[in-house]
Amino acid sequence: MHLPTLLTLLQHGNQLKRTARAGWVQRGVPNAENVAAHSYGVVFTALALAQVIEEPLDLGRLLAMAALHDLPEGLTTDIPTPAWRYLPPGIKTEVERGAMNEILQDVPFAGAWLDLWEELHAAQTAVARLVHDADKLDMYLQAYIYQRQTGNQQLREFWRTRHTFYFPQAQAVYDALREMGEGRGEKEEGRRKREEGGRKREEGYG
Amino acid sequence: MHLPTLLTLLQHGNQLKRTARAGWVQRGVPNAENVAAHSYGVVFTALALAQVIEEPLDLGRLLAMAALHDLPEGLTTDIPTPAWRYLPPGIKTEVERGAMNEILQDVPFAGAWLDLWEELHAAQTAVARLVHDADKLDMYLQAYIYQRQTGNQQLREFWRTRHTFYFPQAQAVYDALREMGEGRGEKEEGRRKREEGGRKREEGYG
Amino acid sequence: MHLPTLLTLLQHGNQLKRTARAGWVQRGVPNAENVAAHSYGVVFTALALAQVIEEPLDLGRLLAMAALHDLPEGLTTDIPTPAWRYLPPGIKTEVERGAMNEILQDVPFAGAWLDLWEELHAAQTAVARLVHDADKLDMYLQAYIYQRQTGNQQLREFWRTRHTFYFPQAQAVYDALREMGEGRGEKEEGRRKREEGGRKREEGYG
Amino acid sequence: MHLPTLLTLLQHGNQLKRTARAGWVQRGVPNAENVAAHSYGVVFTALALAQVIEEPLDLGRLLAMAALHDLPEGLTTDIPTPAWRYLPPGIKTEVERGAMNEILQDVPFAGAWLDLWEELHAAQTAVARLVHDADKLDMYLQAYIYQRQTGNQQLREFWRTRHTFYFPQAQAVYDALREMGEGRGEKEEGRRKREEGGRKREEGYG
Amino acid sequence: MHLPTLLTLLQHGNQLKRTARAGWVQRGVPNAENVAAHSYGVVFTALALAQVIEEPLDLGRLLAMAALHDLPEGLTTDIPTPAWRYLPPGIKTEVERGAMNEILQDVPFAGAWLDLWEELHAAQTAVARLVHDADKLDMYLQAYIYQRQTGNQQLREFWRTRHTFYFPQAQAVYDALREMGEGRGEKEEGRRKREEGGRKREEGYG
Amino acid sequence: MHLPTLLTLLQHGNQLKRTARAGWVQRGVPNAENVAAHSYGVVFTALALAQVIEEPLDLGRLLAMAALHDLPEGLTTDIPTPAWRYLPPGIKTEVERGAMNEILQDVPFAGAWLDLWEELHAAQTAVARLVHDADKLDMYLQAYIYQRQTGNQQLREFWRTRHTFYFPQAQAVYDALREMGEGRGEKEEGRRKREEGGRKREEGYG
Repeated sequence: MHLPTLLTLLQHGNQLKRTARAGWVQRGVPNAENVAAHSYGVVFTALALAQVIEEPLDLGRLLAMAALHDLPEGLTTDIPTPAWRYLPPGIKTEVERGAMNEILQDVPFAGAWLDLWEELHAAQTAVARLVHDADKLDMYLQAYIYQRQTGNQQLREFWRTRHTFYFPQAQAVYDALREMGEGRGEKEEGRRKREEGGRKREEGYG
Repeated sequence: MHLPTLLTLLQHGNQLKRTARAGWVQRGVPNAENVAAHSYGVVFTALALAQVIEEPLDLGRLLAMAALHDLPEGLTTDIPTPAWRYLPPGIKTEVERGAMNEILQDVPFAGAWLDLWEELHAAQTAVARLVHDADKLDMYLQAYIYQRQTGNQQLREFWRTRHTFYFPQAQAVYDALREMGEGRGEKEEGRRKREEGGRKREEGYG
Repeated sequence: MHLPTLLTLLQHGNQLKRTARAGWVQRGVPNAENVAAHSYGVVFTALALAQVIEEPLDLGRLLAMAALHDLPEGLTTDIPTPAWRYLPPGIKTEVERGAMNEILQDVPFAGAWLDLWEELHAAQTAVARLVHDADKLDMYLQAYIYQRQTGNQQLREFWRTRHTFYFPQAQAVYDALREMGEGRGEKEEGRRKREEGGRKREEGYG
Repeated sequence: MHLPTLLTLLQHGNQLKRTARAGWVQRGVPNAENVAAHSYGVVFTALALAQVIEEPLDLGRLLAMAALHDLPEGLTTDIPTPAWRYLPPGIKTEVERGAMNEILQDVPFAGAWLDLWEELHAAQTAVARLVHDADKLDMYLQAYIYQRQTGNQQLREFWRTRHTFYFPQAQAVYDALREMGEGRGEKEEGRRKREEGGRKREEGYG
Repeated sequence: MHLPTLLTLLQHGNQLKRTARAGWVQRGVPNAENVAAHSYGVVFTALALAQVIEEPLDLGRLLAMAALHDLPEGLTTDIPTPAWRYLPPGIKTEVERGAMNEILQDVPFAGAWLDLWEELHAAQTAVARLVHDADKLDMYLQAYIYQRQTGNQQLREFWRTRHTFYFPQAQAVYDALREMGEGRGEKEEGRRKREEGGRKREEGYG
Repeated sequence: MHLPTLLTLLQHGNQLKRTARAGWVQRGVPNAENVAAHSYGVVFTALALAQVIEEPLDLGRLLAMAALHDLPEGLTTDIPTPAWRYLPPGIKTEVERGAMNEILQDVPFAGAWLDLWEELHAAQTAVARLVHDADKLDMYLQAYIYQRQTGNQQLREFWRTRHTFYFPQAQAVYDALREMGEGRGEKEEGRRKREEGGRKREEGYG
């Protein structure tokens, strides 16, 4: 493979470290995470969920798909919903496809990576659906952590409508986070017990 | 798997978003990347290198190993060399092993993840060596980018001693970065030509 | 006017303080300015240019237009060119128009503000063209200042192609900035002389 | 107009992007807004209020005055009250006048800008009073937003004494913000209703 | 004294400005203080406590010891407890001693500074114990302030176990902070009264 | 001593952690140091210089004076020269004296601290003069480090006029920094040699 092509490709991956996750920035979260940090969360979450779900998955395809899922945002940035509200449906995917093609021009294995990306967007396979679940779960976990650590009341919006996951294990984690994020009284005691278990590990942070 | 255990494990992965990469912070790089963003870079770089090296690798093991390689730093933080200089050799790995064990306590698949981690540290297999290469390459690419974008003269230290990679493809990318980072006169023209190729893509950034 | 409507409108203006200028963020500028700060620069620049150009302008329309020019970005964020490259031309303006309509829904004077916005986008009048010039001039001045203060080599991209302004006074300022930004040798002495004049004022900065 | 003079003047406007609003910094608000972003808020607020108040105003004078109101702070920085407590009253205005004169030295239209600035400080005209109202309203709106988004308890100080505005429309917005900022129980329901209306638009931020 | 040696020593002191206090960073405090700012807090607190405790102390030794107490962290960074959990006890002090020796190599007065440092770690003298108290008190005061200004719920961990100080005056301040940090209902009124006294001075921050 | 008084005093010291050093902020240095970090630098520098100057000093008075020298800035913020240019000379000291009195109201040992502060401002004693030297030397060292680490061209202003120190040892360090900061060609080789010596220690940073 032509050296400049490989170097340019690595720079595209690196660019995600300079691409902000707009949802947090818009809500005033200071020093909000970037897309690279989020993508790591998606890879890690997919890796963990793959260990607990019932069906066997191709781990390589799963983690590669998780790693590539937001790669186009290095070119497009993380565009929020309103920008897409005034365009025909499906436009977002077209724009990201165009960006993926631009990123992968001249790359010999572009076909393999585009296949993964298309499989993700079709959302038909177990691997694709687990990546979608991991993507959402990382976002909700992050919302909960920001809520706890920054006192940002606007983050409560994230819990307003219950999100439906493909996999019950992801759903269960989310439902627990949502309960804590909403601070629902009758579950307070359960939350404290879960937190108690977590606290021992948190000492590692102190 | 017990729900609180899974939630706690996901929080450990998330903690890397709040763990700074000390080498940059110590050299005065503002808003330096965290370990999660760096780990993403390692996963992405490993994924790209796997496409270009000669030998076939188990992609799932490769990307999982890349994802887990710095997980202990959520507990230990990213400790620089001097702290280890006054301790017996190998102590660093012991401390990280201890942290990994703490992170994975009660986790049913702890064994599989610890296997990956030990394989990485033994650095005997192709998969482990490619992760080490990806780890270093992400660091050197980041150093080069910080140097270009922040005018930090102290970052030139990174190029002082030539690093030896396991895989020639990683070595080639590094050697090109090192040449540009040192700004060696006789290669100036070659650099401009590579940058020219890159510039077309950079238009995507502005 | 209905109080909640006015309050919501003011919040939309305030949102620009949390909307990043993507071009700087993508190029690694730390703590890059937001759209509110940039919009201030556009208002101030328009105010200054209005004093020096030959033709008389309606100052109220000019400054109002400058103040509103990026208001949609509070909803859409500042989207860079590549995202628009894969869509039909003119889509960007449609999306921003949609966002403006959303921001101004229920606002009694929406019509007057939309008129200003449309006049800006038609770019036919002197007022509209001066706002466009002020918009660009604020960006180029900021690029020059970031270049001087952050040593960011990537910012040199801004000077690659000479931008053509509508008004010669704006063109002259830009040409001077471009000369300094490119650090062109034969003009070094002239630059130092201009800087010398500026230095006296800079003493005000410390 | 002499080119270096115009360039230097534009740099003074740009300097507000590097001038912090001290009140937020002192209270520990992270990444607090700068004077340029605040000045944008004042311009925008003045523009909106001008549409709803009863009397007709010269929009050009209004927005120009709003744009210039904090220009001296590029030289003096935003100095808080205590520094002025040990000096004779009126000293603050003298210092700012001196800074304005320094900024506008050699500027042909200095007289027109100084007139606007003096009119603002005399606070006798409707235009000047609307700028003062806009200045305060932007600050209180920002305090409310920081309070909601950062959980900063110290910001409750802003609501301790009710501020009196010149224009009833500005007063009404402020009184609503104050009610929400104090979190007064009996108005909780009203607040939720207003927020509900706002939430639809907030979806634009998500 | 050899000039380069003095310059290098001053750089080691300066390095504390680039060394983060890990406990805050790990808990998501944005723009957390560095070791230099904390060390200033320790010096200031020691200076204040020295005025109120019963026994006379050598002020020079006290403040010098406070200034040097975290100097090794410029080389080791601020390492949290978990890293030390898997090593024999006392290792932390050995590592810091090694770093101190590295920092003071070639320094003619190294002996005097190492004496102070060893006296601190032996914690037998009144001076050493007052520095330890000042170190802890600065941390708890900072935790309380971050809690008030950032709404970070995780900071409540700091109050879980009551810390025992050597000097009753330090203990009293801490106990008051702990009470406020825990927000204990029955003391609410006392807290408000203390805050009332503080508010007058806080006006200085407004 | 009345507990609330001591707590309030400690909060005043802590406030320096939220007080920016304006000179850096105005020149676009990202995440510039605060007054607490600078004050630490002054204490440390004074401590080091006290070891190398010829005359014996009261170390306790020296370090206490260094610790208190910028305490008023917690109330006044760090005001740059231009604000003082339009006031009678000596006004700055009056304002700071007023702030010191406000900070020390009700403090039993206020007299002792005010004595130190006045001695500093009179600048007649060796202790006071060494604190002034330490204050300046910390600033120039910081300017040099920012220049090296941020590529900020505006920082070259710091070297324009040679500063005269009271003590030859401080002068020598400054002259070496100035030489390196100006990058004067004929001394390039000497600089590299000094840096070489420093590099071994810098390895501690990487």
